Amino acid sequence: MTAELPRPLRGFVAPRVTPLVDRDALDVAGLERLIEHILAGGVHGLFILGTTGEAPSLSYRLRNEVIRRACRQVAGRVPVLVGITDTSFIETIHLAQAAAAAGAQGVVLAPPYYFTAGQSELLAYLEALAPEMPLPLYLYNMPSHTKLVFQPALVRQAADLPNVVGLKDSSANMIYFHELLHLFEGRRDFSLLVGPEELLAETLMLGGHGGINGGANFFPRLYVDLYEAARAKDLDRVGMLHRQVIRISTTIYSVTRDSSSYLRGLKCALSCLGLCDDFLAEPFRRFGEAEREKIRGYLADLKLL
Amino acid sequence: MTAELPRPLRGFVAPRVTPLVDRDALDVAGLERLIEHILAGGVHGLFILGTTGEAPSLSYRLRNEVIRRACRQVAGRVPVLVGITDTSFIETIHLAQAAAAAGAQGVVLAPPYYFTAGQSELLAYLEALAPEMPLPLYLYNMPSHTKLVFQPALVRQAADLPNVVGLKDSSANMIYFHELLHLFEGRRDFSLLVGPEELLAETLMLGGHGGINGGANFFPRLYVDLYEAARAKDLDRVGMLHRQVIRISTTIYSVTRDSSSYLRGLKCALSCLGLCDDFLAEPFRRFGEAEREKIRGYLADLKLL
Amino acid sequence: MTAELPRPLRGFVAPRVTPLVDRDALDVAGLERLIEHILAGGVHGLFILGTTGEAPSLSYRLRNEVIRRACRQVAGRVPVLVGITDTSFIETIHLAQAAAAAGAQGVVLAPPYYFTAGQSELLAYLEALAPEMPLPLYLYNMPSHTKLVFQPALVRQAADLPNVVGLKDSSANMIYFHELLHLFEGRRDFSLLVGPEELLAETLMLGGHGGINGGANFFPRLYVDLYEAARAKDLDRVGMLHRQVIRISTTIYSVTRDSSSYLRGLKCALSCLGLCDDFLAEPFRRFGEAEREKIRGYLADLKLL
Amino acid sequence: MTAELPRPLRGFVAPRVTPLVDRDALDVAGLERLIEHILAGGVHGLFILGTTGEAPSLSYRLRNEVIRRACRQVAGRVPVLVGITDTSFIETIHLAQAAAAAGAQGVVLAPPYYFTAGQSELLAYLEALAPEMPLPLYLYNMPSHTKLVFQPALVRQAADLPNVVGLKDSSANMIYFHELLHLFEGRRDFSLLVGPEELLAETLMLGGHGGINGGANFFPRLYVDLYEAARAKDLDRVGMLHRQVIRISTTIYSVTRDSSSYLRGLKCALSCLGLCDDFLAEPFRRFGEAEREKIRGYLADLKLL
Repeated sequence: MTAELPRPLRGFVAPRVTPLVDRDALDVAGLERLIEHILAGGVHGLFILGTTGEAPSLSYRLRNEVIRRACRQVAGRVPVLVGITDTSFIETIHLAQAAAAAGAQGVVLAPPYYFTAGQSELLAYLEALAPEMPLPLYLYNMPSHTKLVFQPALVRQAADLPNVVGLKDSSANMIYFHELLHLFEGRRDFSLLVGPEELLAETLMLGGHGGINGGANFFPRLYVDLYEAARAKDLDRVGMLHRQVIRISTTIYSVTRDSSSYLRGLKCALSCLGLCDDFLAEPFRRFGEAEREKIRGYLADLKLL
Repeated sequence: MTAELPRPLRGFVAPRVTPLVDRDALDVAGLERLIEHILAGGVHGLFILGTTGEAPSLSYRLRNEVIRRACRQVAGRVPVLVGITDTSFIETIHLAQAAAAAGAQGVVLAPPYYFTAGQSELLAYLEALAPEMPLPLYLYNMPSHTKLVFQPALVRQAADLPNVVGLKDSSANMIYFHELLHLFEGRRDFSLLVGPEELLAETLMLGGHGGINGGANFFPRLYVDLYEAARAKDLDRVGMLHRQVIRISTTIYSVTRDSSSYLRGLKCALSCLGLCDDFLAEPFRRFGEAEREKIRGYLADLKLL
Repeated sequence: MTAELPRPLRGFVAPRVTPLVDRDALDVAGLERLIEHILAGGVHGLFILGTTGEAPSLSYRLRNEVIRRACRQVAGRVPVLVGITDTSFIETIHLAQAAAAAGAQGVVLAPPYYFTAGQSELLAYLEALAPEMPLPLYLYNMPSHTKLVFQPALVRQAADLPNVVGLKDSSANMIYFHELLHLFEGRRDFSLLVGPEELLAETLMLGGHGGINGGANFFPRLYVDLYEAARAKDLDRVGMLHRQVIRISTTIYSVTRDSSSYLRGLKCALSCLGLCDDFLAEPFRRFGEAEREKIRGYLADLKLL
Repeated sequence: MTAELPRPLRGFVAPRVTPLVDRDALDVAGLERLIEHILAGGVHGLFILGTTGEAPSLSYRLRNEVIRRACRQVAGRVPVLVGITDTSFIETIHLAQAAAAAGAQGVVLAPPYYFTAGQSELLAYLEALAPEMPLPLYLYNMPSHTKLVFQPALVRQAADLPNVVGLKDSSANMIYFHELLHLFEGRRDFSLLVGPEELLAETLMLGGHGGINGGANFFPRLYVDLYEAARAKDLDRVGMLHRQVIRISTTIYSVTRDSSSYLRGLKCALSCLGLCDDFLAEPFRRFGEAEREKIRGYLADLKLL
């Protein structure tokens, strides 16, 4: 069985964390449990090696192992997208090839994030890279981590390059997202997906194709339900589910004020639920017992524990 | 007749531009025409001397004249809110007193914006200022211009101070706005209003009380209709009107790439429509003929010209 | 006796704090004591109503009083420069006229700091403003507070406008400063002065004309000595005095981590030394007893107490 | 013959570009010529795989080849420092091991630059990493590219970890640098080196140990002379050489306004001088003929061509 990648990709995609027992060792059993948990929630796709997957913190050996194991485990039940963002063009190509070889359905690319490239430099970069892609390519707008924005005009040009089929926006800037939706009104095969789950409801109600949101690791059904409610134009139900998402955001992801709070809270929740280990690769570290206790309380409030 | 200021203020408020014929001279006839045009569109309130009103660029003499003329012209038909943001505590008090004396219904305050105050300093500032207010006070979150954010925790504390009744958020950060809505779920008398019109649709559908959006200067009916459609839970109509708002944003407000493009485009459109002069106070200047020609075309496309 | 304003202005200028007993009331005796203390240190000029003078936080009435009292007290012994930065063109003109009427020798202007003007807008602003100046005008580059930079190319153009005679750079960006020195190598009548005292030594050794540094309020002799040592090319003495400046910066100005730490520490030190009150206008507040105790210790270490 | 790494490292170190003929192919002859050219200029060390070396843009295979070839070519004539910055802890370790195996004398590390780690997370990262280092470790403060600052308090703590021997500061913030010099006054074995060449003169005159500056690729003697003049306290000669450095900065590095202008100008100059190819790895590209013509003119003005 092989998942097909619809054009446009539409639906709710889970950006899977990478379960670890050490900085270079997977929690293999946890990874399998987690994938089954997520798929049981009804998601329409799986995204591995993104920001939530801590990809930049992992060795290349481990990233390759993650790709192989995830594709084998999913076994075509839903499309698998693989993050291939890298500061080196060559390493990005290698990751894309590994994704294709393992049977993934698409790749996801943020800008090279050490140097500060201008828009014309980014376009030239995409012009060189896109034709080399063995799989459909989603752009990944993530300015807080990459310092760079794929500006709307650039996205419009990039959409005409071979293999470029959509964009995931994690800028949290809905004006930008609405401008993209406006620009692509006539291009019905180009997917526009949102990263921050706090913005999923409005994205779906105002024309976006879907979301790729971290909470799906522990509570996939919530986000799938929100997607379905928006499709059904059930505004009351959208509002109710949206408020649950905001509750998760203001509790589980906000235990500390560090920018690592989201990832640490997410992995801690997965560990509390018995899904996988909460080890984090450098530069982050798992929560201590005090924070874990809080997370447990939040999960109980959500009736997940 | 006197407008009442409902608690919470709910609806669509127009942030009026300040029609000028010179840097220290009002376009008096334009000001009167503009107010009638806006009120004819059915707005629920008028906000003067905000960012769209170029308040910081005007002399204090002119600001006082603007307050008196606007209140007299509106004559209680809708509530009038007056921007009193200033780097000097004393001058802020003076502006609030002028607003009360002229018969305005509320005042709007962004943080003092030269020095970079911390959150506890901002709270102390509000604790000193709020009790002095002769009118209900709306906070104005405007980080791009003030460098400062009224963080959610601070807003929550400020809401317990005397006279503080709501917040206008112009951060364009919907995660922040959703967090505020979440924090104030139990406080039904506190208004949460959005600044950027591109975010009005989602604000209204997900629990916000209204918007204060510049496009209402030339096309008030559009925003009032959007407000009504959202109240009626008519998702299709909300989407259709929202797309018109985005079209305005990507055309009339985007003729140049400067950060002044919004204000210059807005005043130019008002001038094209014969509503008022397009003079801008320093540091900005009106558009030239080439940009004006574009604006005229956009207005024609919108069937406003 | 009237101070002459040399071209270029060369030397060490003290940016005086504004001694207050309340938010709208001067510490008149403190102001007089402070001016005498500073002049006794041998400074070559006095700058009032700058950032260190908390100008944006003061009412216009008080700013006018400050101008009159300072000019009267200095009585031509050194040139007096007056900060006229304002978001309103008209109010800037009023402040410049007040400075001229009181007998000041120059005015100092940062960009209007609410709206984000582009470089060409800033140039047009200066082209309109400069000819209206009744006194020689110094530009004031202060991006941390104004969000705007007077880029080198703009400064080069502005230097050809009437009345523009120099620039104070508080960007703390020495690459910018060196680029300005390079651009003005052939223009010997244009002053380039540095704001942060931590950068005074290198400024003087590498071609800058002088400094306008806050520490001169309590320890004017240190900065004047550093200026003289640099003029004498006494590198060892420059290094020794520079290390004292850094010691002040890392102690008296660094008691807290807020951005207000410099101003609060400075006024606290003046109060400990019996020179003037340490009241600060909103949005800042004076230090408490714990911080005051630390400042006292630092002053004792410096043998000032 | 083996270079010794003095404690503290003191002098002028050249951050070598990586000569390329394609994105994954070295210009081997150019690399050899370039190293000989640099060493002939009298530099005290060579730094490879830094920002100027485009390290993050290169494949790991190529980075390893660069390490081996550079160490073999230098053959112990001066110490070789190797950049090992990576977002992955494991890959950083691999690079450090390769550096040690090839005979390098030290390694240089900026923070992992995708995620935004806090200061305590950075400290924990260094606590885990430093003991694993097979060579002395220099920290590399480079906030414009990494988004993170090694704050002075963190540097002070890190200096007590095994293998940590110094810091290269490319922040261009001299207040930060002076604060570090102040903090390390008593620690005479810790090197403080500056990155931007525009700041080399003041660094050397006010207590810094040296510089690691890109201009040394084409004009090593200039920077070595500046170092010697500062050691000799010859303030006039320092000023004259400093002005030449600023001239290079405002011409060769400033042909365009992109942030890639420095690297493109530098490689173009090397190509004009016949030292190596000017190919740049993605996301950057070599200059075209128009810019090259300008660079040639600048080199002629400097009497290098």
